[in-house]
Amino acid sequence: MKYQNNLGHEKHMVTFHSIGVVRNDVSKMSAGNWAKVQSRIEIDNDLVAGLQGLADFSHLVVVFHLDQIPAFDKEKQLLRNPRGMEHLTPVGMFAQRTKFRPNPIGVTPVRLVSIVGNTLIVTGLDAMDGTPVLDVKPYIPEFDRADDVKMPAWVATMVPGYF
Amino acid sequence: MKYQNNLGHEKHMVTFHSIGVVRNDVSKMSAGNWAKVQSRIEIDNDLVAGLQGLADFSHLVVVFHLDQIPAFDKEKQLLRNPRGMEHLTPVGMFAQRTKFRPNPIGVTPVRLVSIVGNTLIVTGLDAMDGTPVLDVKPYIPEFDRADDVKMPAWVATMVPGYF
Repeated sequence: MKYQNNLGHEKHMVTFHSIGVVRNDVSKMSAGNWAKVQSRIEIDNDLVAGLQGLADFSHLVVVFHLDQIPAFDKEKQLLRNPRGMEHLTPVGMFAQRTKFRPNPIGVTPVRLVSIVGNTLIVTGLDAMDGTPVLDVKPYIPEFDRADDVKMPAWVATMVPGYF
Repeated sequence: MKYQNNLGHEKHMVTFHSIGVVRNDVSKMSAGNWAKVQSRIEIDNDLVAGLQGLADFSHLVVVFHLDQIPAFDKEKQLLRNPRGMEHLTPVGMFAQRTKFRPNPIGVTPVRLVSIVGNTLIVTGLDAMDGTPVLDVKPYIPEFDRADDVKMPAWVATMVPGYF
């Protein structure tokens, strides 16, 4: 649905319904060390036929709704120290992987361990228990991998300990 | 918002508002050869401060709503020949990158050419003109790249000509 916001911009509004849910032992935000976390993604039973053939892939891209994050605060969160690290210069949130975003959508490639019925066992998913899943796609390097990547130096400070 | 569907599953509903829009010369679905397409992503003016520092990255992950796709038809689209290729065995849509999905969300890493004001110039975005953008993230290999990827053989048939 298209509409105009109070600044006269054309905006678009869309409603999604979860296709499944994350189950794991993580109940705290920003746990870090996500690579070690094993999660179950329970796909809704009416969509299970859509999993056929997925077990032939080693990795998936999981798209999820960070539903436990407070509403985005434009005044405070458009510019922010990466990962809240005081010694880093604030940068725009579009230049970060922060979970504080206008649309709190997580996108993470994960390793698929196995599929049992409607349940995907995965490792490396940075989502808390109960997180609604919006989509699951096969990870295909031609679609998902960028090469010759350049990044600013501060990223190297921010990355360790997250995964 | 959580609710129960008519099968008694707990579902979650979420509404997102676009943060910008794609502008390019592509007005037909399934154009293919996306690597050659240059697009502008026009970010809403009230969010421009969030772009600070983004120009230091060579690649972005763009999350977008495939808003011109007909509503998902569970009967016909849960299982489908990859890319509609008749000689390929039907597989589940979660095992494909098809745009016919319960939640038509596109996730694509793109090359960032430049940023001018509120406009990101990118190449390789597989989205038509007018596509609403839901999020833009910096591509960071530690977050976005999977290694030792295994895939079924049919993928090699489906990939050529898409990007």
